[in-house]
Amino acid sequence: MPTISGHTKAIRARKVIGTNVKDPSGKKIGAIEDVMLDKESNDIMFAVAGFGGLLGVAEKYHPMPWSALEFNEDQDAYVVNYTREQLQGAPAGSIDELTRDDGMLFRERSYAYYKEPRYWESTD
Amino acid sequence: MPTISGHTKAIRARKVIGTNVKDPSGKKIGAIEDVMLDKESNDIMFAVAGFGGLLGVAEKYHPMPWSALEFNEDQDAYVVNYTREQLQGAPAGSIDELTRDDGMLFRERSYAYYKEPRYWESTD
Repeated sequence: MPTISGHTKAIRARKVIGTNVKDPSGKKIGAIEDVMLDKESNDIMFAVAGFGGLLGVAEKYHPMPWSALEFNEDQDAYVVNYTREQLQGAPAGSIDELTRDDGMLFRERSYAYYKEPRYWESTD
Repeated sequence: MPTISGHTKAIRARKVIGTNVKDPSGKKIGAIEDVMLDKESNDIMFAVAGFGGLLGVAEKYHPMPWSALEFNEDQDAYVVNYTREQLQGAPAGSIDELTRDDGMLFRERSYAYYKEPRYWESTD
């Protein structure tokens, strides 16, 4: 069956969750555990990646800007341009911590760390 | 444990999926099956509700504007202001149909049917 994900920009959360995350060399470094949504606006706040076992930091969730995740058909994974070391130093916390303060704190830290455009400040 | 969902506008897709949908009288009419995300923008396109068994239309998924879903703590559900008859006549299709054309067709039909503000046309 041809993958639908490659031919549509509409992607279901259920398909995103569980998708592997790999580094540019194709090595698996984790998986998407969840997607944080903004109830009041129509925005995806960030993806939640789990690098726990692989990075040696157990039970930590990494907020990652949605725009930082590029799906790679061949790898069947999101390939991110970060080294293991960069990810180890990235903002991370428990799910409860990530949702605190309306998710604003970790959104802020995550977008700053990964240097992704802050969608909530865009003004066309 | 106090529900976090009521005190933060950041909500995880995993918590949204599986949440019941009830009519204003408190009667369960379905549940959220998925959330459609826009890969190219930062937008939540629509929620995907399943009313199959309850509305008597098997295996159909109903795209619903994210803004139409109001979480009700007491009901532990999204309470929607639509009658069973209104929902039976609402846009619906298979998951494949919902993702076709980048999800645009069903987004269009859904927002028109439920008369929700079209977030993609907002200009501040």
